[in-house]
Amino acid sequence: MLFKVEMVVNIPLDADPAVMDAIKKQEKEYSQNLQKSGKWRHIWRVAGQYANVSIFDVESNEELHNLLLALPLYPYMEMKVEALCRHPSSIREDDR
Amino acid sequence: MLFKVEMVVNIPLDADPAVMDAIKKQEKEYSQNLQKSGKWRHIWRVAGQYANVSIFDVESNEELHNLLLALPLYPYMEMKVEALCRHPSSIREDDR
Amino acid sequence: MLFKVEMVVNIPLDADPAVMDAIKKQEKEYSQNLQKSGKWRHIWRVAGQYANVSIFDVESNEELHNLLLALPLYPYMEMKVEALCRHPSSIREDDR
Amino acid sequence: MLFKVEMVVNIPLDADPAVMDAIKKQEKEYSQNLQKSGKWRHIWRVAGQYANVSIFDVESNEELHNLLLALPLYPYMEMKVEALCRHPSSIREDDR
Amino acid sequence: MLFKVEMVVNIPLDADPAVMDAIKKQEKEYSQNLQKSGKWRHIWRVAGQYANVSIFDVESNEELHNLLLALPLYPYMEMKVEALCRHPSSIREDDR
Amino acid sequence: MLFKVEMVVNIPLDADPAVMDAIKKQEKEYSQNLQKSGKWRHIWRVAGQYANVSIFDVESNEELHNLLLALPLYPYMEMKVEALCRHPSSIREDDR
Amino acid sequence: MLFKVEMVVNIPLDADPAVMDAIKKQEKEYSQNLQKSGKWRHIWRVAGQYANVSIFDVESNEELHNLLLALPLYPYMEMKVEALCRHPSSIREDDR
Amino acid sequence: MLFKVEMVVNIPLDADPAVMDAIKKQEKEYSQNLQKSGKWRHIWRVAGQYANVSIFDVESNEELHNLLLALPLYPYMEMKVEALCRHPSSIREDDR
Amino acid sequence: MLFKVEMVVNIPLDADPAVMDAIKKQEKEYSQNLQKSGKWRHIWRVAGQYANVSIFDVESNEELHNLLLALPLYPYMEMKVEALCRHPSSIREDDR
Amino acid sequence: MLFKVEMVVNIPLDADPAVMDAIKKQEKEYSQNLQKSGKWRHIWRVAGQYANVSIFDVESNEELHNLLLALPLYPYMEMKVEALCRHPSSIREDDR
Repeated sequence: MLFKVEMVVNIPLDADPAVMDAIKKQEKEYSQNLQKSGKWRHIWRVAGQYANVSIFDVESNEELHNLLLALPLYPYMEMKVEALCRHPSSIREDDR
Repeated sequence: MLFKVEMVVNIPLDADPAVMDAIKKQEKEYSQNLQKSGKWRHIWRVAGQYANVSIFDVESNEELHNLLLALPLYPYMEMKVEALCRHPSSIREDDR
Repeated sequence: MLFKVEMVVNIPLDADPAVMDAIKKQEKEYSQNLQKSGKWRHIWRVAGQYANVSIFDVESNEELHNLLLALPLYPYMEMKVEALCRHPSSIREDDR
Repeated sequence: MLFKVEMVVNIPLDADPAVMDAIKKQEKEYSQNLQKSGKWRHIWRVAGQYANVSIFDVESNEELHNLLLALPLYPYMEMKVEALCRHPSSIREDDR
Repeated sequence: MLFKVEMVVNIPLDADPAVMDAIKKQEKEYSQNLQKSGKWRHIWRVAGQYANVSIFDVESNEELHNLLLALPLYPYMEMKVEALCRHPSSIREDDR
Repeated sequence: MLFKVEMVVNIPLDADPAVMDAIKKQEKEYSQNLQKSGKWRHIWRVAGQYANVSIFDVESNEELHNLLLALPLYPYMEMKVEALCRHPSSIREDDR
Repeated sequence: MLFKVEMVVNIPLDADPAVMDAIKKQEKEYSQNLQKSGKWRHIWRVAGQYANVSIFDVESNEELHNLLLALPLYPYMEMKVEALCRHPSSIREDDR
Repeated sequence: MLFKVEMVVNIPLDADPAVMDAIKKQEKEYSQNLQKSGKWRHIWRVAGQYANVSIFDVESNEELHNLLLALPLYPYMEMKVEALCRHPSSIREDDR
Repeated sequence: MLFKVEMVVNIPLDADPAVMDAIKKQEKEYSQNLQKSGKWRHIWRVAGQYANVSIFDVESNEELHNLLLALPLYPYMEMKVEALCRHPSSIREDDR
Repeated sequence: MLFKVEMVVNIPLDADPAVMDAIKKQEKEYSQNLQKSGKWRHIWRVAGQYANVSIFDVESNEELHNLLLALPLYPYMEMKVEALCRHPSSIREDDR
């Protein structure tokens, strides 16, 4: 089941760069593990923004919630979630 | 070069169903041709809405503009365009 | 899987009352059938508005989409969809 | 008398985790007591957000106000309140 | 139980003035009857707008809903409803 | 001359409770004095919010401005002001 | 007593130009009479818009309301009204 | 050349009152000098707000920019600028 | 003196294509004449939209207003105008 | 490939002026180098705001992203990016 998730990251100006670097490293690892598992299907950077557009493929709303809340950068993020489904015009087998 | 395009379709209540069906059939054909060519990389339906979330892969802003303006349903659509780029955490070869 | 759906109905001032009455009758029947099946879990009227707040319990985003698009009043509605999940503080067995 | 209440929780980044854990524990207890009493009829988590959608069943606006203001997490919350009533299409005896 | 209701009236430019005058006359009568009964506690015109700010005193959300939906001008109105309660600083006996 | 004033109070999470209690006590006294004088005609609490809806009856915009700016809680408030006038359907002698 | 009024004029595309010209002529005459009387203190065009920014000097909210509602173009206008008062830094005798 | 400028002042709750008083005194002096020179044509207080509506008469956009950026309170202000021009219905010689 | 003007064109679905083509032809000619004269300094299409971003270089707000109101497509356009000035970091002689 | 980028700079009130001056100096140098290279085609100040409107000419969305993220003032900026393309009415050879 697919969801578009748009994440905007807001790092406070006075955040400790070393702490943030450690969190970002964990975030990358966490994201790549979910990508490998197929749960995090796509991730793109929004040009000019510290933000991404992602597509998740999960079993349920609960699974999506748990994956997102566990993001290391979650406390610094604003999130928009939108439920998607297969488009009747789609010809790609994996866009479902 | 990637763009997220979000299209919302507004059909007037008094539109002629036969005319709209013909336009929707052209739209589907047009969309599927662009999907086959690789220009229209992904298309998903937004749950509960007559709307889609799409990813385009084009040579330039001009090409994107020309593809979108030629959509048979374009006069009935509102559009939001956002320039995307590869995310440094992405592990998918084709998310660029 | 639960979703909150908020529906606002906009009937044009010049709509034919007989036609609208027929559609509303179909809508009621359609809604009550889905309520009986357990798919449409709750429906409340918003005080002072021609609008409702509903909770759907469906197998997938696709099922939700298909149920909503088939609403007889759909062409007259604006819709907002939000994915819900069980709250860790909930004590009701059926709020999941 | 029914109300939909949507609560979004904003914890400052520099909040003391031990203090917040204590408040959240009180919040859970408080919420569950109100659920047991039938005042807090439903509570769902919004997928991907530190937020809930709730349905309250109270005697009056005053009672609703007093219940909400006494939430241990109230100082950290944004709230939207909407008065609901029984929907003429509802078939559930307890959606009133 | 008190509610603030804000009503904005939008008359289409091509509405028949005789029809609208008849509806407005009914509206005035309807409003004055509810004022006499004590249900419609206050009504003020918003300066420069075809809009009012009103205070209703009703038994329940249902009663409020039914009173509002029966307004002769309802099909031409946008409405905002807000539940009020007695303010702890109020010294007026009847502001409850 | 009547004005609707909507006040939302935002107390910072780290405000000193003793200081705030003192200010709120002054606020209550100040409000009740203005109510007694007839300048502050009505005040209601918005259900679920630290906010009020008020009606002021003043000689001029200047007087309204001076009364509001002197509110002990003013530095913590957001304010919306709307000029009202007697509604042609009103039957209450004092809603002017 | 001063008010800033911002008026935006929306003429439907299918309005009869002769009718609109007549209304605009009345509007100009009406506006100039009020300017001569001192009630309509200032009027400026917003660059690039069919809109104006105006300052009214009236006895009361009622008078403002009556002057605005009588504008020949009123049915085609959106209006924003804001109560003003003398600024403590002002040195102009007539900005009050 | 005329511009409407709307300034909203936001003083942080923890600002040093002595410092702010000094800045406000400079602001007043600065504003009055520009009023005397004819550059700052009008200034009104918005009722109930720490905000003003002003009309500037300048040689160019550059001059406006330089005057505004030099406001002693500028770092505490939000600003909206709108280009105005003479209204064809205006009868005041100096509203140009 | 420079202004950014953003124009969005909304053609009604039932507009006569021949009429619109004639107006668009006039629009192009009008725009190109102003470009040649140096008044309309830049014009770009917004990708995916029937909209443009333009830079005007005019003597005054009045001149800008008159140029824009005379656009053949003006009745079909929404407009946003923003006053610009030379940026202190600019190295282009003609960006003033 | 052209993009309009609108940057708004928000400097916290308690920022160290010496630090900010150093960053602004770097920003100016960085901007002027990109202007010389032809990547940053235009930059204008928005009148009355600490903000600019810029036109970038880049090879790709990625290049735009990298140029913007490297702005010395980036952590203090809000950004809006819009993809542009040549307008069919443009007569300027370099507006592409």
